[in-house]
Amino acid sequence: MLNTPCTAGRRRFLIALFAALCACGGAWAQASSTDPLPSWNDGAAKQAIVDFVGRVTRAGGPDFVPPAERIATFDNDGTLWAEQPTYFQLAFALDRVKALAPQHPEWKETEPFKAVIEGDLKALAPSGEKGLLAIVAATHAGMTTDEFATLVADWLATARHPRFDRPYTDLAYQPMLELLAYLRANGFKAFIVSGGGIEFMRVFAERVYGIPPEQVVGSSGVVKFQMTADGKPVLTKEAKVEFVDDGPGKPVGINRFIGRRPILAVGNSDGDLQMLQWTVAGEGERLGLIVHHDDAEREYAYDRASSIGRLDKALDEAANWGWTVISMRRDWARIFPSSP
Amino acid sequence: MLNTPCTAGRRRFLIALFAALCACGGAWAQASSTDPLPSWNDGAAKQAIVDFVGRVTRAGGPDFVPPAERIATFDNDGTLWAEQPTYFQLAFALDRVKALAPQHPEWKETEPFKAVIEGDLKALAPSGEKGLLAIVAATHAGMTTDEFATLVADWLATARHPRFDRPYTDLAYQPMLELLAYLRANGFKAFIVSGGGIEFMRVFAERVYGIPPEQVVGSSGVVKFQMTADGKPVLTKEAKVEFVDDGPGKPVGINRFIGRRPILAVGNSDGDLQMLQWTVAGEGERLGLIVHHDDAEREYAYDRASSIGRLDKALDEAANWGWTVISMRRDWARIFPSSP
Repeated sequence: MLNTPCTAGRRRFLIALFAALCACGGAWAQASSTDPLPSWNDGAAKQAIVDFVGRVTRAGGPDFVPPAERIATFDNDGTLWAEQPTYFQLAFALDRVKALAPQHPEWKETEPFKAVIEGDLKALAPSGEKGLLAIVAATHAGMTTDEFATLVADWLATARHPRFDRPYTDLAYQPMLELLAYLRANGFKAFIVSGGGIEFMRVFAERVYGIPPEQVVGSSGVVKFQMTADGKPVLTKEAKVEFVDDGPGKPVGINRFIGRRPILAVGNSDGDLQMLQWTVAGEGERLGLIVHHDDAEREYAYDRASSIGRLDKALDEAANWGWTVISMRRDWARIFPSSP
Repeated sequence: MLNTPCTAGRRRFLIALFAALCACGGAWAQASSTDPLPSWNDGAAKQAIVDFVGRVTRAGGPDFVPPAERIATFDNDGTLWAEQPTYFQLAFALDRVKALAPQHPEWKETEPFKAVIEGDLKALAPSGEKGLLAIVAATHAGMTTDEFATLVADWLATARHPRFDRPYTDLAYQPMLELLAYLRANGFKAFIVSGGGIEFMRVFAERVYGIPPEQVVGSSGVVKFQMTADGKPVLTKEAKVEFVDDGPGKPVGINRFIGRRPILAVGNSDGDLQMLQWTVAGEGERLGLIVHHDDAEREYAYDRASSIGRLDKALDEAANWGWTVISMRRDWARIFPSSP
């Protein structure tokens, strides 16, 4: 039977099928080996992430976590985007002071406004927290929530980072964008939990990070519901701090807004210490990650001595609590989406 | 050609195909005509809901709303579950006072505790808001958030409603469970926005309503982050009100927790007035719904004169703002999942 035309046809068919299977298998092998974190260099940090996600998503495995409980929390400044030479929200506030100065001639002689208008940030320091609150009050209050969101959107569309000469929203970290996408693809829900202003971050978090407003937790000022003279309801922002979502405030913010303990937390400063502790102290598989800014060439190098994003106590505690420290210099092949 | 075997075979094939298509079409027609709201009687309320959902989900239509913006907010007490003869959370607090009484012999002589222990709710009234706060402080504070959640879960598992003699969680409204499922199936994200305690509701909201903890907005007390003597982080509940998510507090809570304006809001009392106003004042297609408790036979009948769930001003405003009033008696074919 071997040499009948039918058998020859059958052989050709089997060869073709085999070739198709090989091609298919090749493509399949390629698909399953596509690196979801291409901007992460191979190393302990990347391995810790991939191992953790593998363990908590393996159905039937001992560390399996149902999708509803796959909560991840990310600090924002210095974790999802840069924070030097100063917090970007502070850069926004300083630009607002300058824009508003013509309507406030008295600011020319009043600190902290005088220092801001004259561009003398060193002269700002003696004003301390009180000065900072005065700037926040002058730039973040006395308007509706919608008006504030428009001001932020307009600023983000025009302002440029002093060193990188790009819009601030271009300075999200490419490895973190990949990590967020990888977590989403694995059934996680990622939240921002930041000391930054909640209404500031919500303007760009969805577009830049894919994190919707309802997954943004942050510091806030008092907001009041009011009716305008023509019967239109508005929410107005008042010059009074309501909640500081930093340090011990982060687990409190997580409890209030999310109501579940995260299984993964990512931070970069001492302001994230308690969030990391709260996260990994939960039962079952947990992962704590700290971004260490040690790359002066491609970004910035700072830790224990920095007034912005100081990383001191949390770095000391990392070994005790089993957190993985990410070296920006060694672990990240690329820093920003626009980097080579 | 008509009578060749081949053609006969072809005819049989076409007849079979036609029969299959008919069967298929029948099933398809049946599937598409399956009522997603079977516990809602036909009428203006049901029609308003179905029309609204149809309009905002019709791709390419003038009223289309992208899924990310399909935010719906529901009051809880009297809207998602019953609230008579008293708020269920208050019933929990009163039961807790009785359970704790042996550890507080002084309560026998101190109001408001004396009245609670003696089961004399009328004697509670003179204590007013101050008395209520004392009860909340004694039953909702001085423990960790985890301990509180366990107390609530234990109570829900054992306590029974005085009239219906069922667990309180059986007294969710069947038409609302259907509405929540219908909205979910149409890409909506539903939030609870309630004057009730956020940590109380989160214990059962996911199981009973399918609403996860991170979609529950409510009133809260101050919570503090602390380290135990053996280095374990805990969150402790303090006897201090932090946020009242009621009346004008509801749009504030929506802004703080959700960060987007809902396109659909559902309430049943004057405590929902500002949430309804804030919702429908947004641009584009909006829907406001008010549950009117007018069914003394199957549930309760109360509105303008009730101290629990008073519906007075919001009922007057319904016509001005274009809200749809749901008559529990006429619009709901079934009240509870266990009802006939």
